[in-house]
Parts: sequence; C-alpha cells; structure tokens
Amino acid sequence: MSYFDAASSLPLHPVARQALLASVDEGWADPARPHREGRRARMLLDAARETAAEAVGCRPDELRFTSSGTHALHTGITGALAGRRRAGRRLVVSAVEHSAVLHTAEAHERAGGLVREVGVDRSGRVDAQEWARALGEDSALACLQSANHEVGTVQPVTEVAEICAEAGVPLLVDAAQSLPWGPVAGPWSLLAGSAHKWGGPAGVGLLAIRKGVRFAPPGPVDERESGAAPGFENIPAVVAAAAALRAVRAEADAEADRLRALVDRIRTRVPELVPDTEVVGDPVRRLPHLVTFSCLYVDGEALLHALDAADYSVSSGSSCTSSTLTPSHVLRAMGVLSEGNVRVSLPPGTTEEEVDRFLEVLPGAVEGVRAHLGAGAGAAAGAATGIGAATGTAAEPSPSGATAEVTVDALGKLCPLPVIELAKVIEDVPAGGVVRVLADDEAARLDIPAWCEMTGHAFEGVEGVEYRVRRQTADS
Amino acid sequence: MSYFDAASSLPLHPVARQALLASVDEGWADPARPHREGRRARMLLDAARETAAEAVGCRPDELRFTSSGTHALHTGITGALAGRRRAGRRLVVSAVEHSAVLHTAEAHERAGGLVREVGVDRSGRVDAQEWARALGEDSALACLQSANHEVGTVQPVTEVAEICAEAGVPLLVDAAQSLPWGPVAGPWSLLAGSAHKWGGPAGVGLLAIRKGVRFAPPGPVDERESGAAPGFENIPAVVAAAAALRAVRAEADAEADRLRALVDRIRTRVPELVPDTEVVGDPVRRLPHLVTFSCLYVDGEALLHALDAADYSVSSGSSCTSSTLTPSHVLRAMGVLSEGNVRVSLPPGTTEEEVDRFLEVLPGAVEGVRAHLGAGAGAAAGAATGIGAATGTAAEPSPSGATAEVTVDALGKLCPLPVIELAKVIEDVPAGGVVRVLADDEAARLDIPAWCEMTGHAFEGVEGVEYRVRRQTADS
Repeated sequence: MSYFDAASSLPLHPVARQALLASVDEGWADPARPHREGRRARMLLDAARETAAEAVGCRPDELRFTSSGTHALHTGITGALAGRRRAGRRLVVSAVEHSAVLHTAEAHERAGGLVREVGVDRSGRVDAQEWARALGEDSALACLQSANHEVGTVQPVTEVAEICAEAGVPLLVDAAQSLPWGPVAGPWSLLAGSAHKWGGPAGVGLLAIRKGVRFAPPGPVDERESGAAPGFENIPAVVAAAAALRAVRAEADAEADRLRALVDRIRTRVPELVPDTEVVGDPVRRLPHLVTFSCLYVDGEALLHALDAADYSVSSGSSCTSSTLTPSHVLRAMGVLSEGNVRVSLPPGTTEEEVDRFLEVLPGAVEGVRAHLGAGAGAAAGAATGIGAATGTAAEPSPSGATAEVTVDALGKLCPLPVIELAKVIEDVPAGGVVRVLADDEAARLDIPAWCEMTGHAFEGVEGVEYRVRRQTADS
Repeated sequence: MSYFDAASSLPLHPVARQALLASVDEGWADPARPHREGRRARMLLDAARETAAEAVGCRPDELRFTSSGTHALHTGITGALAGRRRAGRRLVVSAVEHSAVLHTAEAHERAGGLVREVGVDRSGRVDAQEWARALGEDSALACLQSANHEVGTVQPVTEVAEICAEAGVPLLVDAAQSLPWGPVAGPWSLLAGSAHKWGGPAGVGLLAIRKGVRFAPPGPVDERESGAAPGFENIPAVVAAAAALRAVRAEADAEADRLRALVDRIRTRVPELVPDTEVVGDPVRRLPHLVTFSCLYVDGEALLHALDAADYSVSSGSSCTSSTLTPSHVLRAMGVLSEGNVRVSLPPGTTEEEVDRFLEVLPGAVEGVRAHLGAGAGAAAGAATGIGAATGTAAEPSPSGATAEVTVDALGKLCPLPVIELAKVIEDVPAGGVVRVLADDEAARLDIPAWCEMTGHAFEGVEGVEYRVRRQTADS
C-alpha cells in the first residue's frame, strides 16, 4: 500500500508518537491552575510554544495554538479584520486559497465587508504587481498562501509581504503546506499552520500574530491562548505537534531534494505514458513533494478507485468525486483541465520503487476508466475510432447544411461525458466546421476550453449552456 | 500526591489511553477521502459517534464532535440562537452557568440580543417556576447546566426541560460535569459535554442537537461535523473519548456511591475540624464527587499553596487567586462566603485514606494561613485575641462618642483583609454598636454580608464603599 496523499494528512511522525505518549501522562491538567499538576502542564505548554515559535520564526508570545489549521485561519482572518475595522473593510485574497480562507471571506462579505480576489496565471501563481494594485486605501487585511495545496505552486509570498508592509496592510500567510519544509520569509503579520500536515496529531493548528498587529478575537470572550483559541488546551497534542515540527525540519532539506527528484520523474513520465494528459502547476517554483495532472476523458472518482485497487491512495480536484459537484476552485482559477484530475503528494520516506510502480500502474488504470466510459485510447481522434456511433452521440448536421455544424446534446450529463462526446464528433465536421455542445455540468466551463487548448481546436465561446468549438487541422 | 481537582480535568482513563494508542495508527487520515486510509478513519469516527451517542442518549446523526466543551457551548448557543432568530432574541440562562455560557450570552447581548438571567437559592439551585416565568414569547433559547461545576448542586433539569418543551423553547443542557455519571433525562434540545472531564483526552467536546431543532452553524461555512465543528476531525482523540465515556459509565453507579460517602465525610468533618467554615452547595441533590467550602479569614490562594505543599491539589473560587480579581460568579449568585474558598472534587478511585489524610492536613493548613494574615484561631472573637492592635487596624471611636461607632479603613486591601479587620474590631464596640468598614475590594460585597450571616452580627447595608455592621450578642 502506498499512501500518496500527504498534502491531505500524514501519519503521526515517530517522534510525535513518543512525545504524545509521554505527555498524555504529564500534560492532562489545567495549565491555569496553580497546583502541581497544573504547573507541570503549563511547563509542557510553554516548552512546546518555544519549540514551535522557533520553527515558525516568531516570538513564543506571538504564537497561539488553535484546535486546527482551519480554526487558525477562521480566527486569524476574522480577528485581524475586526482589529482593523477602522482602517477599512477590504480583504484581499488570492483566488486559489484554501477553502477555509475563501469561506471566511464569504462570511466577511455576508457581513457587509468587501472581498477583492486576485487571480492567478495558468501555473497557479499570483502576480505581485497585480497584488499591489488590488490593495486599496480601505484594505484591512490581505491573505496569501505560501504554496498551493492542490497544485504545489509556490507563491511570491516574500515579495507580496513587502508590498503589503509598504502599504501598511497586514498580510496573513496560510503556511499549511510549506511549514514542514521551512519558515516563511518576509515581513508577514499573521501566519497559520496545521500540525497533521507535518506529521503532528490532528487537533492542533497554530496562529502566529506579530506584536503590534491589531487583533480582536472573534466570538465569546475566553482567556485561553490570549483569547485566540477558546477551550481547554490540548497539551499532549500540542507537545507532539511541536516535537514533530522540529523533527521534520531537521530532515527537511535532504528529504526535499529526494522527493523533488521523484516528483520530476512523475512530471516527465506521466505525459509520455498516458496520452491526453496535462501536468499542471509551476514545474520549478513548487512544493518538493506534490504534483497534479489531469487526464482527458476520465472520471476522477473512478480513477481514484482504480488506483486505490492498485494500492495507491491519491486525491482529486475533479468535480466527479463523491464529495463535491463542482470542480476545484484552484483548477478553475488556473483555467486548466479539471477532469480526471489526480493529485500525488509524497510523504517523507517515499521510495523510488513506489514511484516507479505507480508509473507502471497508472496507464492501465487510466485506460480502464476510459474504456469503461467508452473513450478508448484513441478518443482524441474522435470519429476515427468509431466510438461516437456505438454510444449514441446525439449529433446531427445543422439544418442549414452550408457551413458544416454538428450539435452534441450533453445536457444532464456529468464530467467527463460532455468532453468525451465532443471528442467523438469533432471529426464529423470538416476543418473549419463547428461543433455546438449543449452542456449544463459546471465542469464543462473549464474542461471544454481546456480540451480545445490541449487538442488545438478553437474555442469560440459559450452562451448559456451552448459551447462553440471550431475544428482545426494541422493546416488550418 | 492526591489530586482532588477532578472537576477541572482528569488524567487519561486507561481505556482511553489504549484506544488513543491504537487509533493514532489507524485514524490519522482524512475521513472525507475515498481511499483506504480515509475509509478506515471514517469507520473509526462512525463507531466512536455511535458509542458516544448511546452514552448521551441521542441518535448518532444528532451528535457532533467539537474541539472542546467550550467550543460545543459557544457553537451550540450561537447556532441555536441564529436558527431561532425569527422566534425572538431572548436567551434565558441561570446565573451559575459555566463562564463559557455566560461569555456567549454577553456576546449575544453585545450583538443586540436580550439575556434573562435566572437567579439561584443559597444552595445554588434554580427554581423551576421562576424559570417558567423567565421564558417570554420572544425566547429563542434557554441554557441550564445539569449540575454546577463549582459547588456540585444538581439542577432540576428534567423539570426545566419539560417547562421549556411546553413553551416551545429549545433547552441547551451543559452536561459537562454530570455526563460521566449518567445521561440527562427529559426533553432537552441540545446538550454539550467535554471529554477531559470524564477521563477522555483534551481536544474533544460533544454537541448533541436533536432532530428538528433549528440550528444555523455560526462562522464560516465548513463541511465537517455537519458544519458544527470546522476543521479536520481529531479521530484518535474522539475514539479515545468515546471509549473512556463508555468505560466510566460502566463503573459510574458503584463509584458514585463510594465517592458520595467520602464527600459526606468531608461535608460533616470540615466544619467540626476548622472553625469559621461554611460548606456550600446542596447537601443532597449534588454531584457525587464534589464539595466546596469557604474559610473565614483565609486567602484562597495561600490556602491552595499550603495544601499543594501538603500534596493536595484542589481549586478555589476565591477572588484572591492569581488568575482573577473577582470572586466566583457562582458563589456571588448564591450569596455565600467567597474568601478562603476550596473546591474538592475527587477523581474515580480516590481512597478513604486519601480523604482522611486530607482532613488531618486541612486544619493546620488553614491555621497557618490565618496566622500569617494575623487572624489566628480566635479571629472571630475579635479584640479578645489582641490581634487588632498588633497589626495596626485603623480603628478609631467615632467623633460623636455617644453611639459607639468604629471605622475600619480597609481601602486598597484585598480579600480576606477587610473581613479580618472587621472581625478584629467588632468587640471594640458594645452590643448594638456599629462598625463602618471602608472597603473597595469587590469580594467584600459578598464576604462582609456572609461574615455577618455566619457570626450572627447584623449587616445594615452598603453605600458606595462603606459597609455598616451592627454588633449583636447572644442577648441582642
């Protein structure tokens, strides 16, 4: 069994396991109590705070432990917005932030605040100059991830932090994905992280708030963790989290080099081994252990199951996974294909053999899913494969007859079926002819243009549920 | 070392320890993922939910795990108020709820809501009929604890639940203190608990929301735990918490009988062994393991330290503990003495010998603190002990000379000094004479009347910082 979903959660690091065991016996009492058990708990908490602060690059009294990374983001953003309410109500975020950030932004908007979303390029990266322009005089806070959780692209966070500092706007950095690999440089104001992403236990997030940053904790008053994290401190978990962070940092540079090479191998080999595949995200400025690719004519959930059956655990940003009906907002913001999406994130210690076996298994898994959907290896070649007729594509010549035009009715069909049907009929029209695709699945908005980009046909736009694609040939 | 602060937090139950160990290796993955590790985590989470729901007495789909008991209360109250906003904005609470409830009520008030606080009698118990009267047509929610965390008094929660149900107002029960001992009966709508109070790990609370109760989760949208608890699920801790709850319930009845007898011994013996002591809370309708008493002329923090030095860990609701400058709101609502307050809460397994040794140690500890403050064993006898002069009490006969009146200037002096100085000079005035005490410490509002009640002198009221006490004798 190979677990390639490290970006989602990691097993407990052996050091964390040991620290947890030791501290469940020592750190269960209330650290606010003056008795012996309370003082012992307080000492453990203080030591864990020092360790974690050193890894984050802040003072211990600037660091609060929260109950999760999500909680750190919710609290950090809401508290910083409230603390800066007099400065204004604008919140600047990138379009590819974690949903915990975007949901907090939505709550801010519902409460009358203003949210300015900064887009990304096709690699998923924000442009620092565009960020500078998005900051207005009424900006209360800006939020940028250090690296993207779905495609691994590293953001220009130091540059953005400097721009924000110059504009007098605090920057909150969501460092959940990058914190195991190193501290975040630059003059950031707030920073959030999540322990189970670095081999610490679940139930521990951290929120650093630099001295001098205005902060008004949201929700009911509570005296724990300087008001930023209500509820009894989870000291054994906090101790384990801090110990794990120190341990992974000690191995980070060597492990990053090793995993970077393994990811490069996947980035190179997947498009060679699997036809009609797009590897997304920045190839260089990226997390060492994470790579994402999308496969045309593939149902993401079916591919997850096929890989699971072959003993590989990965995740997917496709809309066709059970938990969601819309494709990943990250892939959407990048404007890349979302169907048949696979995110591979290697845990520390992944071997070359595991990666090689993954590369052996993947082509068959993709082919199996394509065959099941009636989109065989030659699907991109369309009618040539004869699949169109076999699966009953609703294609008919346009009434005019003059300009060749074919309509595909994919209404009610979910990703990846609209694209599969488009691919099947494209050869039915001559070069310069048009295929009209009727599709109401949300993923089509992303995947039909992305398919055109990948196959060289011309996307001519969408009106309502009608997409127009003009066939191009090598000559046209 | 005897740890008598079970109501604050308990060490991990051996069953919880074992469950935690097993599930850190099995339950670290994201239960929302369809891969093998995710499915395994989901199975553990589902099983824990079934176990906990059975102990609470609700359906598994009515139970949400939260990151703490405090979080369960914050979310439960805020979400139920939001869900019932159309019904009205009145929140009914008892005056002796946990601070997490009262702080949420304050936040509700700051946001324009109405809070109606129901008082308690001298034992700390609410009156069900008074509760009925406090419910108005505009009531959105009512909150009542099952038992008080500071004095152990059990509330008429079943009766109140029935009254609320009849009035169509949902009742949230804070069951944090009673849940280890048994489920809460009656038609409650929401219920909150905290795992580290029953020997589960920190970082786990639970919030039950009965089907049909309107609930709008506060804060940013999040899909975990039906939206009630944002952030990655802490499955190993949840599994350990559920296992511990089942384990303590199996032993609850027998252990309750045993601890009840030990607490009865403390309730009887303390006033016999330590002069000028008041045992507070309902002597019968109470938690089995908890007893609270207050000692006149004693600094609560100093007494905690003296007991700590004698190897006993207890807690205190006195204002003179380092973390607070105001006396416990519970003792204040009850109108009982707050100075020299000690809460003893016995963990499961406490032995008779430990309790007996505590009763041996306590008188000396109290005497030591009193002696240090210049209030020896005979302090209540006032001038008779000659302490007044020795410590320079600012007492002088009133200028009139006719009606004997003495003024004590205790401005700027903290609890228990104003009461100590009052006791020293009371004998300086003849029966029927008056002592005016000038005191600006907040605890004096509670402790001077309580001292009068305990010593049989007449409290004649307070104006600003001036308290009037008329000396009574056995004849007067």
